Amino acid sequence: MSESANYADAHAVVLSSRVRLARNLRGLPFPDRAPSAVRAEVCQRVMDAARERLPLQEALAGAPTLRRQLLFEGHLISRHLLTERPESAICMDAAHSCTVMINEEDHLRIQVLQPGLALEKAWQVANDLDDFLEQKLDYAFSSTLGYLTSCPTNVGTGMRASAMMHLPALVLQNEMEPIANGLAKIGLTVRGRWGEGTAALGHMFQVSNQRTLGLTEERIVEDLGEIVRELEGHEQNARARLKRERRLFVEDLAARAKGILTAARLMTAQEALERLSELRLGILLGLVRGLDVQLVDELWLAVQPAHLQAAAGRAMNSAERDKARARMLRTMLKGRTPKRAQKENPHE
Amino acid sequence: MSESANYADAHAVVLSSRVRLARNLRGLPFPDRAPSAVRAEVCQRVMDAARERLPLQEALAGAPTLRRQLLFEGHLISRHLLTERPESAICMDAAHSCTVMINEEDHLRIQVLQPGLALEKAWQVANDLDDFLEQKLDYAFSSTLGYLTSCPTNVGTGMRASAMMHLPALVLQNEMEPIANGLAKIGLTVRGRWGEGTAALGHMFQVSNQRTLGLTEERIVEDLGEIVRELEGHEQNARARLKRERRLFVEDLAARAKGILTAARLMTAQEALERLSELRLGILLGLVRGLDVQLVDELWLAVQPAHLQAAAGRAMNSAERDKARARMLRTMLKGRTPKRAQKENPHE
Repeated sequence: MSESANYADAHAVVLSSRVRLARNLRGLPFPDRAPSAVRAEVCQRVMDAARERLPLQEALAGAPTLRRQLLFEGHLISRHLLTERPESAICMDAAHSCTVMINEEDHLRIQVLQPGLALEKAWQVANDLDDFLEQKLDYAFSSTLGYLTSCPTNVGTGMRASAMMHLPALVLQNEMEPIANGLAKIGLTVRGRWGEGTAALGHMFQVSNQRTLGLTEERIVEDLGEIVRELEGHEQNARARLKRERRLFVEDLAARAKGILTAARLMTAQEALERLSELRLGILLGLVRGLDVQLVDELWLAVQPAHLQAAAGRAMNSAERDKARARMLRTMLKGRTPKRAQKENPHE
Repeated sequence: MSESANYADAHAVVLSSRVRLARNLRGLPFPDRAPSAVRAEVCQRVMDAARERLPLQEALAGAPTLRRQLLFEGHLISRHLLTERPESAICMDAAHSCTVMINEEDHLRIQVLQPGLALEKAWQVANDLDDFLEQKLDYAFSSTLGYLTSCPTNVGTGMRASAMMHLPALVLQNEMEPIANGLAKIGLTVRGRWGEGTAALGHMFQVSNQRTLGLTEERIVEDLGEIVRELEGHEQNARARLKRERRLFVEDLAARAKGILTAARLMTAQEALERLSELRLGILLGLVRGLDVQLVDELWLAVQPAHLQAAAGRAMNSAERDKARARMLRTMLKGRTPKRAQKENPHE
């Protein structure tokens, strides 16, 4: 109980923090311009350099599409690598929190994922991994520009820091659009969880820096962290107002979401994310009992097409997935009713 | 169990049958043209004549709006009398199956309602009541035209016979529109349950004759009965096809309906009818267990605004009704889970 309450507190608004660093090897053309032999050489050199810290290494070129989808859904590879790219690969640590993509837009994309709001921590871990790799690899670096990257928007620190935020109350109170516009004006990008634009599925938003040049990494992380904390406050205020002023509306929304998730026989991924978001809000506002936020956050990933097929151990078409997704949601959400009720009605 | 199975069989498609006869008193102007004193005289004479058979008599003019709404929702008075009309009244038997409206469009509107498909029975009862009243009242009757009525479309028999039909499968299979057009061509009218046009709420349709002149009452009833039985067959076929060919779709529809009805905290009357219709279909197809059709049919009426307020014993605005309706539905539908489960989980 205390553990799940802790999880809910730490993840109420900010689900995770991420830092990624774009790096390239000196004297070699960027992946898009490099011949196959050069890309293969880059791949081998980076894998060798990373092996001690990131022992889980796999080629993405030639891997089944489903495998790349699974990694993409889990935010372990980018949309760019979802498409099959020659001589691309991924290196991961056991916890999947540190990864290096090889031959994405740049030779290396170092990524560090941390739960909750922990941008400084993510930066420290990424910086440490970067230092470790730099001992073995010769990075393309200019004393005037900083790290050189394939796309000019990344030149300088090569860093993008981002926070994954659940902002249902700001959306329901119609405050999200002006906020997103305001953030764009101060150089931040707001996108959906899988980068699908601001019409974010399930009220899940990625907030990240745009500027990479002329600022230190510490300053980027500090500035973004400040904004994210402010946005978190706005969302918490909006939630409190929602509960105070539109309690029945939000109670209805969450109760229906639970009713549908535990009853439906067919469910698309999009609807699942929408209903899970409403349920998550209801749980966090104390309006839905007997379910915890951590389960909802696990389901968020489990309802994705590739995760669903990985769990089933077989490829499924869209209609089969909708059926399997609905069954999985019914099972997972009904199985987690409070213990007392479960004991009293073992046949339910 | 056998009783509820019998009810479901008898009401699977045709919920009720109705016959209404328009009658006027000889030598007196029709209600719309009659001065107040004449309407008052008509009212008194009809009430006196009907009292022995229809002892429940009440003035509609001066009655609270809510009372007229209650009678309208129960199909005991027409939309015409939902508006306050001077010197209008209603006479009913104890079972509310025989009624006479006074000073509607005509001086008398005799109505007989029977459960299931029983047009002949409804006609016999109406005819008997008509004969009884004719012994005491002098009807306006022409040997060439038949019964004279305020609106020319009723002249002749003055009869309208109708069946209330639940046709969800024909709607879901997109077959209802061509059928309604075909019925219109052979002189039948298809409307929603409360006469709201063919976009029937909750897939509930009233099918009635248009022609009243040049046919005997027996012939009208016989012809309509034949069409209704045919339509009933079409619906049963469509249901069988739906279960065979789109089972998962209809299972999902019914399960979601139950999920929403037992979870929602706010519910409009329109949504309630839509969800109850889907639930009703699921029960009849054997895809939803633990609930019976009769309860759903009772709820159909209970969710109506005036019935809801009558049950609460107080007037409620729209927002209060949506809340009370959702609560009533949760209570009624959750309370009727199978007995075994109820016993094992008394706290649910």
